Amino acid sequence: MDAMLGLDWGISAFRAYSIGADGAVRRRYASAAGILSVPDGRFEAVLRCEIGRWLKPGLPVVAAGMIGSRQGWREVPYARAPAGVDELAAGLRRLDLADGLAVQFVPGVERLGADGVPDVMRGEETQIVGAGADAGLFVLPGSHSKWARLEAGRIAWFATFMTGEVFAALKGHTILGRLMRGDGGFDAAAFAAGVAYARSEAAESGGLLKRLFSARTLGLFGQLPAEGLSDYLSGLLIGSEVAEALTCIGGGAPAATVAGGEALAQRYVRALALSGLDARAAPPDLAAAGLYRIARAAGLIGGMA
Amino acid sequence: MDAMLGLDWGISAFRAYSIGADGAVRRRYASAAGILSVPDGRFEAVLRCEIGRWLKPGLPVVAAGMIGSRQGWREVPYARAPAGVDELAAGLRRLDLADGLAVQFVPGVERLGADGVPDVMRGEETQIVGAGADAGLFVLPGSHSKWARLEAGRIAWFATFMTGEVFAALKGHTILGRLMRGDGGFDAAAFAAGVAYARSEAAESGGLLKRLFSARTLGLFGQLPAEGLSDYLSGLLIGSEVAEALTCIGGGAPAATVAGGEALAQRYVRALALSGLDARAAPPDLAAAGLYRIARAAGLIGGMA
Repeated sequence: MDAMLGLDWGISAFRAYSIGADGAVRRRYASAAGILSVPDGRFEAVLRCEIGRWLKPGLPVVAAGMIGSRQGWREVPYARAPAGVDELAAGLRRLDLADGLAVQFVPGVERLGADGVPDVMRGEETQIVGAGADAGLFVLPGSHSKWARLEAGRIAWFATFMTGEVFAALKGHTILGRLMRGDGGFDAAAFAAGVAYARSEAAESGGLLKRLFSARTLGLFGQLPAEGLSDYLSGLLIGSEVAEALTCIGGGAPAATVAGGEALAQRYVRALALSGLDARAAPPDLAAAGLYRIARAAGLIGGMA
Repeated sequence: MDAMLGLDWGISAFRAYSIGADGAVRRRYASAAGILSVPDGRFEAVLRCEIGRWLKPGLPVVAAGMIGSRQGWREVPYARAPAGVDELAAGLRRLDLADGLAVQFVPGVERLGADGVPDVMRGEETQIVGAGADAGLFVLPGSHSKWARLEAGRIAWFATFMTGEVFAALKGHTILGRLMRGDGGFDAAAFAAGVAYARSEAAESGGLLKRLFSARTLGLFGQLPAEGLSDYLSGLLIGSEVAEALTCIGGGAPAATVAGGEALAQRYVRALALSGLDARAAPPDLAAAGLYRIARAAGLIGGMA
């Protein structure tokens, strides 16, 4: 029997889980009904359309992700880092619907950097606490990749890297994309070459704006096949993200847990290994586990307070 | 009387100069007939259409820019850095047309970086030698910005930064562009804030992939108006280019001469000043001056050998 429903409702995807009292995921549902696809704020209609058959009066629904942002259904103030399950549970915001239904929105997390610049996450915090770890380094690749450090069960530090969105913009809308050919599967050598150049410490190599041009010239001089250019750029950007993150973290970075879609996570595990970091893929259904832990901490699941 | 015609024929622009025996520019012509707009390799037809009235049997025509690339009219092998007027003149390639006409194509310059990665320029070399300087630092902003160091009258070092193209791709095709509002003229404070953050040396600031996200969060937290976001991103990217270039160059960078379109050059002069570098705008018609100097060195202009 379901003890709760969990939603991971982001920009471009809608994911739902029905979860038992023991935390086991009983059913999964996913669609492209991300918040950008919802017309005129009709979130309730979309929710009923997507998983109406799962909804029951009194059954808690807990939602994480951009659904709790200004562009979503109900804006929830960010919890301030360090934040863990208890802080996220304390920050839940409840919205009552008709038919005895209510949705609880999980807050995102904000952090003010030592350089005075704020950073934010919405959705990733739920995946991170879903791992149930006390400490560790988490990497969540994506359009806006997140790196987070967990201490005493709470997200103590995190940072965002615009890697995925930069890759898509460069591939789709610059000369680098126009030089790319075909897609004969993953080119591991080209990817590794990109990671290696991202890691170059020669003063001559400059930073990312300069290194990007190598994707042009290595092709021009026949050192990189046009078919490998996309994976070279991918390696260059993911490798740059890893190098930047290690700068932020400083020495002694612990083994990293990489969450997210399998193909992309595998690229990160590979880039981390090439950068000398131990990495392993996270177990699946982290978001569901996080939603369950937050619901329990909030006393939403019967018998637990 | 014209002693030669000079062409600066690039990807998206066609520029022509009629030049007297003393090097003075007598007439200027510019259009959007860049090589990307030329159908089916019909470069000669486009040339006759654009400046047919200037062409005369025996009048030398010297062309620099991407017209001499694989995608252009005639591919000219790169001269190897260090290269100055003499090396460029020695590398000219002549193409004879009907009616006693001939076009001489200026080679670009290639350089193998200390990190093993090659770099190239085509067109900028002509502008740089056009300044007639013996030494100095040149900055040529654009889609692919070039920085070059002149020693003993020759281009000894140069590097390319994809700043302009990255800016356009990020503004046009990421969340950062979607957050930008209006265009109430240049926002000097936002631009300076972007340059300042590009110059942050806090480990926390990471590199460009992390810093880009500040354009999102500073807006989210009301520290940057949506109307200033485009200039903030411009400052962040140009400031990053300057910081990367200074890393390449090392200490003791000389005063920089900034060539290029006025509005963009002014942004660079501003970013260089904010980065502690002396900078001045280059005189106009650098390309014409370079084409003239190369033609003279090649003995193409009567009486000079």
